[in-house]
Amino acid sequence: MKRENVPLTVIRRLPRYYRYLGELLKSGCMRISSKELSERMHVTASQIRQDLNCFGGFGQQGYGYNVEALYREIEDILSINETCDAFVAGIGHLGTALVNHLDFAHLGVRLTGLFDINPEVVGTRMQGIRVAHIDEAAEHIARLKPRLAILTLPKSETLPVFRLFVSHGVKGFWNFSNMEMVPPEDVVVENVHLSDSLMTLRYRVFQ
Amino acid sequence: MKRENVPLTVIRRLPRYYRYLGELLKSGCMRISSKELSERMHVTASQIRQDLNCFGGFGQQGYGYNVEALYREIEDILSINETCDAFVAGIGHLGTALVNHLDFAHLGVRLTGLFDINPEVVGTRMQGIRVAHIDEAAEHIARLKPRLAILTLPKSETLPVFRLFVSHGVKGFWNFSNMEMVPPEDVVVENVHLSDSLMTLRYRVFQ
Repeated sequence: MKRENVPLTVIRRLPRYYRYLGELLKSGCMRISSKELSERMHVTASQIRQDLNCFGGFGQQGYGYNVEALYREIEDILSINETCDAFVAGIGHLGTALVNHLDFAHLGVRLTGLFDINPEVVGTRMQGIRVAHIDEAAEHIARLKPRLAILTLPKSETLPVFRLFVSHGVKGFWNFSNMEMVPPEDVVVENVHLSDSLMTLRYRVFQ
Repeated sequence: MKRENVPLTVIRRLPRYYRYLGELLKSGCMRISSKELSERMHVTASQIRQDLNCFGGFGQQGYGYNVEALYREIEDILSINETCDAFVAGIGHLGTALVNHLDFAHLGVRLTGLFDINPEVVGTRMQGIRVAHIDEAAEHIARLKPRLAILTLPKSETLPVFRLFVSHGVKGFWNFSNMEMVPPEDVVVENVHLSDSLMTLRYRVFQ
């Protein structure tokens, strides 16, 4: 259970395990061999064993993995049961798509503030939240103290918002802006580069 | 140069190398040590050496990597210079965000068809392309023969479109629908699960 030492590359694979195990659970599957799991997930069985051994392992020789125990453990590692507040800055098409279509509650995230500058968007409501002008963000953030922020702003507008949010104690940024930020040591930025997987797809089709 | 054997996990990291090397090139940097590159990219230097050794390696002991040569090689491996046509099915907020904000040309992708069922969207133009009704897709696809498709439809509407496109020779799918498809052997599906990186962010903030 030396969780502090789990490499980030392994952590990045956990949500995928979590999704597959959740589907197995729903379909009533109670246990699965690393071989079966590997075939479903298209990773090698030895990779799975190696990944899951990072936090104690759950497989028993000849039995395989207990699906529910493993699911709950990953849920616990990813602390999905603890709800955490988040602001969204940038309610354009991408921000709107995320706010409306992502199951934030299931991910342990509660949206408490939405911000934009577009007068056609400011004042509208989305998922029960009124979209406020970004100029009001400082007041809202001081009051609601979210730990996370989702940045779906144009690249050029991202940096001042990032700095404002950091100065008010936001500790994690989910960044879609393609702006590379240099965060203070206690702040985490998770950049999403959608085009990376498109490049991978192209490679796989044309190789 | 045994490229056929490059593991997919390495391929998935190439777009990131490509982005970082592109930025280095822009800033006039001609060579870089694996140590410097590793610090910028937050991966270990040995990982970088191992990854790049998969296709012959480019580093010279004591010299480091030639930035432009490495950039061009990755461009070549990812075949970014060959343009490939793509259809987009689903012009809701996510589809619109992708069509308008992603630099497809730079990724070697040309959008040649956009499809939706929403009467408010069908008939409008985006990036010079008229959004057509999904019922017209079969006719368009037979004529334009795209190799790739981007699926930004609701989960429940994805499967029939996927089957239609496969039957017309589409070989690669960039799938945002959370619908797990079982593709024929010569068809590749690259699933994008946006929530995976949000879970990783949560973990990194709360660990």
